[in-house]
Amino acid sequence: MLSKSQISLLKSLQQKKIRKTHGLFLAEGIKSITEFINSDYKIETIYHTPSFVPKLLNLSQKINFIECPATDLAKFSSLTTPQEVIALIKIPTWPVLETKILQQSFSIVLDGIQDPGNLGTIIRTADWFGIQNIICSEDTVDAYNAKVVQATMGSLARIHVHYVNLAQLITNTKLPVFGALLDGENIYQTNFGSQGLIVLGNEGNGIRPEIQALIQKPVTIPLLGKAESLNVAIANAVFCSEISRGKFV
Amino acid sequence: MLSKSQISLLKSLQQKKIRKTHGLFLAEGIKSITEFINSDYKIETIYHTPSFVPKLLNLSQKINFIECPATDLAKFSSLTTPQEVIALIKIPTWPVLETKILQQSFSIVLDGIQDPGNLGTIIRTADWFGIQNIICSEDTVDAYNAKVVQATMGSLARIHVHYVNLAQLITNTKLPVFGALLDGENIYQTNFGSQGLIVLGNEGNGIRPEIQALIQKPVTIPLLGKAESLNVAIANAVFCSEISRGKFV
Repeated sequence: MLSKSQISLLKSLQQKKIRKTHGLFLAEGIKSITEFINSDYKIETIYHTPSFVPKLLNLSQKINFIECPATDLAKFSSLTTPQEVIALIKIPTWPVLETKILQQSFSIVLDGIQDPGNLGTIIRTADWFGIQNIICSEDTVDAYNAKVVQATMGSLARIHVHYVNLAQLITNTKLPVFGALLDGENIYQTNFGSQGLIVLGNEGNGIRPEIQALIQKPVTIPLLGKAESLNVAIANAVFCSEISRGKFV
Repeated sequence: MLSKSQISLLKSLQQKKIRKTHGLFLAEGIKSITEFINSDYKIETIYHTPSFVPKLLNLSQKINFIECPATDLAKFSSLTTPQEVIALIKIPTWPVLETKILQQSFSIVLDGIQDPGNLGTIIRTADWFGIQNIICSEDTVDAYNAKVVQATMGSLARIHVHYVNLAQLITNTKLPVFGALLDGENIYQTNFGSQGLIVLGNEGNGIRPEIQALIQKPVTIPLLGKAESLNVAIANAVFCSEISRGKFV
């Protein structure tokens, strides 16, 4: 049984500023939690119903377990269908983005992505295509937002998501800077080489003008039909696929 | 002002069987409705708030307008933030899927997709890449579900979504049948040619065994990282992109 104040604190982690203050977030469901356990993340506590068997988690680290009724979990769960197990996890600090970390690889750069489902899907897709780093503008939705955590399907445990001043980062980088824009080179004719940053913009407004000005290689996914735009998580997938295919052909 | 029974009927269109019985569905928001107006769809009625100016819709067909308070619209809207304008639209009947309709093009075939957001994104992506037909198993989520309509961002007005017995359709087709499977040919080394069906499976279970058995060319998006799976709308985007790139390189 959890006290009212414990539940209230756990529930308050739905707010970004509270997550930031405490350096903690919640992950729900056995699949997602298992991925965090098998990663570098530090699990603080696992809250579970009496019927949930902690052995299912196949533990490699020592974890504090607290058994509580499903009604308690429902009080701080962010899901419409709360899971039987919720983990309280420390938000990690990733190594500073020095030049060498990003070299010889591609990283995704997100300028003002707002939708948690989009960010989650972008993280999951990056994890499929072997991309390690996602670099976000400071106003991009928080990766530890419950809906993002859920949408990554566990991939958040492996991908490093950084929040930085994008203009500064792009100005200082020596890597080629590609950007998804409407009037760029055809993506299927673009030589991506073996390293670079791929900049994708906000759902409604695209890449901000001041960031656009820093893009060296505008790239376009050619329109063959009549849709007005592509969802940003879909555009990300097409870019990830194009930079990956070079490894096979 | 709408009567209680009118509102109740409009609200009941959130249910698939009621949509089917009446052959009607709702689209919300000026952007989406404009796309339907500029298509072959037949608009029955447009409900709008007093502050909404119908002229904004740039009408080419004669439409019945009904002005009603925002509180009435909210009663049958499916959105958490109801729009100022909602259209009642006839569900069209697409031409029967004869062989010639699908020839010399690619079509997306969906086996049991359940998530409305996924279907909506698949329709929008197909519209970007110039794919005309999406063929769904009978248990795939209904394309006229409000969440699907919303997620297509107007693309539903242009794409033909068919619901058929998939096993029968695939057995009878003379087109090459590609399928997204885990043990197939590398997608980047696959020669798609200029026509075919691309089969994608259910979010959790993939393509049903009986449909898998009918796939001539299993194709795989190679895993470079560690994600357990790709979202089906993302897999669709990668396939759409690969079949499109042949037009440019």
